[in-house]
Amino acid sequence: MIYFDNASTTKISQLGLDTYNEISKNCYYNCSSLHKGGLNANKQLQQARETILNSINGQFNDTLIFCSGATEANNMAVFGLAKKGARILTSMGEHPSIYNTFKMTKNNVVDFVPLAENGQVDITKFQELINENNYDFISIMLVNNETGAINDIAKLVEIAKSKNEKTIFHSDCVQAYGKIDVLVDNLGVDAISISSHKINGPKGIGALYVKNGLHLNPITFGGGQEWGLRSGTENLPAIVSFAVVAEDKVKNIKANYEKVKHIKERIIEIFSQNNFDYKINGDVNGSPYILSISLKGVKGEVLLHKLEIDDILIGTGSACSSKSSDNRILNSMGNTKDEIMGNIRLSFGVDNTINEAELVANKIIEHCNYLRNI
Amino acid sequence: MIYFDNASTTKISQLGLDTYNEISKNCYYNCSSLHKGGLNANKQLQQARETILNSINGQFNDTLIFCSGATEANNMAVFGLAKKGARILTSMGEHPSIYNTFKMTKNNVVDFVPLAENGQVDITKFQELINENNYDFISIMLVNNETGAINDIAKLVEIAKSKNEKTIFHSDCVQAYGKIDVLVDNLGVDAISISSHKINGPKGIGALYVKNGLHLNPITFGGGQEWGLRSGTENLPAIVSFAVVAEDKVKNIKANYEKVKHIKERIIEIFSQNNFDYKINGDVNGSPYILSISLKGVKGEVLLHKLEIDDILIGTGSACSSKSSDNRILNSMGNTKDEIMGNIRLSFGVDNTINEAELVANKIIEHCNYLRNI
Repeated sequence: MIYFDNASTTKISQLGLDTYNEISKNCYYNCSSLHKGGLNANKQLQQARETILNSINGQFNDTLIFCSGATEANNMAVFGLAKKGARILTSMGEHPSIYNTFKMTKNNVVDFVPLAENGQVDITKFQELINENNYDFISIMLVNNETGAINDIAKLVEIAKSKNEKTIFHSDCVQAYGKIDVLVDNLGVDAISISSHKINGPKGIGALYVKNGLHLNPITFGGGQEWGLRSGTENLPAIVSFAVVAEDKVKNIKANYEKVKHIKERIIEIFSQNNFDYKINGDVNGSPYILSISLKGVKGEVLLHKLEIDDILIGTGSACSSKSSDNRILNSMGNTKDEIMGNIRLSFGVDNTINEAELVANKIIEHCNYLRNI
Repeated sequence: MIYFDNASTTKISQLGLDTYNEISKNCYYNCSSLHKGGLNANKQLQQARETILNSINGQFNDTLIFCSGATEANNMAVFGLAKKGARILTSMGEHPSIYNTFKMTKNNVVDFVPLAENGQVDITKFQELINENNYDFISIMLVNNETGAINDIAKLVEIAKSKNEKTIFHSDCVQAYGKIDVLVDNLGVDAISISSHKINGPKGIGALYVKNGLHLNPITFGGGQEWGLRSGTENLPAIVSFAVVAEDKVKNIKANYEKVKHIKERIIEIFSQNNFDYKINGDVNGSPYILSISLKGVKGEVLLHKLEIDDILIGTGSACSSKSSDNRILNSMGNTKDEIMGNIRLSFGVDNTINEAELVANKIIEHCNYLRNI
């Protein structure tokens, strides 16, 4: 089986699974329990928090809240950081957990900046909107989940904060964390969301980073865990596993980046060598972990099912939007309806090989040639 | 190590951990992916849902929504089922994820029925409140997490629905599920919350059951998983593990009940044989999984730390309220401040033994004799 759907979810690494098992067996206690088991669990929790904070250059007095995943983290950011009546700016490229959540906020005015053809936020439009309005809260993702396009968050933050230094800037860093540098000081952001299962960590765990001094309102209530900001018994095996995997990913970020870059480049090379007719959606210089292409005269979903017979698993758009026929993100980039229908997303992980890249590229060409001739 | 803090959290069983590992390795796909990996993952998800629904006598067209745990399930029930402006009734015995959440609801009038001395909801007061008011939403737990007291939910539902058949009745069944019968048809409830980590399943997973025909508003937004009622990539390894463990627990519910009952009874027997001065909080006929006692002249927390030196881990009140000096639940039952200070909670699991019960009972007597004499 060749798995090229890593932007959707990844297989947990042996390191991640071993850590999950170790904590499940030997530190299964409730972090709130007063006995030594609970104290030890709480120590492990705080160590995991420190590990993740260090990996993003966070400060010791910043807040990192563990939660069930990036969808919850994004909801916490939107409902917890944007005050009632806040003027909000986000983009047409955001994940549904930002985009749909902003659509649900009441008493707020939300603007959506469109994407440029390369999949990045249209920076000219962004500047115009900033000039014309006074935003309290902005959320723009670092790496787009469908195209791999990388936004220049540091620049966007600079534009926003030079207009209004009190603007709170959040960034969904799910497809960036552990793959490219996500350093909150360099980015200049106030809050970010990250996820474990996109980087070979366990599912069901993520975190919201919030810079010290910012007020976050909780969206759920209960036993008061995570300083009352996110109640519920801490999922310690998943939290520690996430931290251990994340630390390893960040340590090997450059080597992994180069490895995956070769995979993406090899596919593009084979397409070129075969004069294959295709179009890259987004920037070729975006994240090497994602390659979104559109294929004239071919339906992405049909190609997906052809490839699965060869034991090759790929995606069409994001898994989250794969079941809807429209595609907001490709649409905002100016893609035609045919290009959207003909879209597939290949997304890579460190376990993929050059051999797999060659096999998949050739299979795509073979199936497209067949499908285009019937 | 003797672990008598199972109401706080449990150690995942080998069956649960094996299942988690199996799915993590062989079915790590995103349930929303269109390829055969995703379809298989989705099939496993639906099977797990059916398993849990069957275990509570739910109907095929009822809704069971997986989420990150019972705190989230309780929040979903409170915010998602109780309409704006709804008249609400709950009890002074509820878990903080119900009690604190109701305290946060806006535009609602919430009444709190007190507890009787035996830890159950005061049924006379309940009847009076029902007579005087017209409640839209009621939430009363089945088994109290601090005392093990069992509420007669079927009776409470009957009282409530005979006044207003449209009243929505939710029950937090976290300390009941897998330990005593939790059958939604017999109870007559409209919704229940359950948790995995209290029954030797993985942490970070729970579910909200909602009877067909009832409208639930989601509290978080995103990719539209779980019929749009709870977005976020499904934590399939934990979901399937939860279902497998739950099925096993429900299958062995009677044998496990008897085993744990003997443990609780043996402790009480040793206390009696030694003319030990103690008071049971709650009903001696409550859940055998929990024994809450108050010890005159002894601080619960001091005893807890004495016992941990002997490698015996117990609780004081619930882990969720263990860090606050007051105790709402014991207070509502009419306990004095000294009784609250002298409270410990022993909570049992199927892995505990009669030998452990004897050792712990004797150690408690020994430490109390020492502490009462200094």
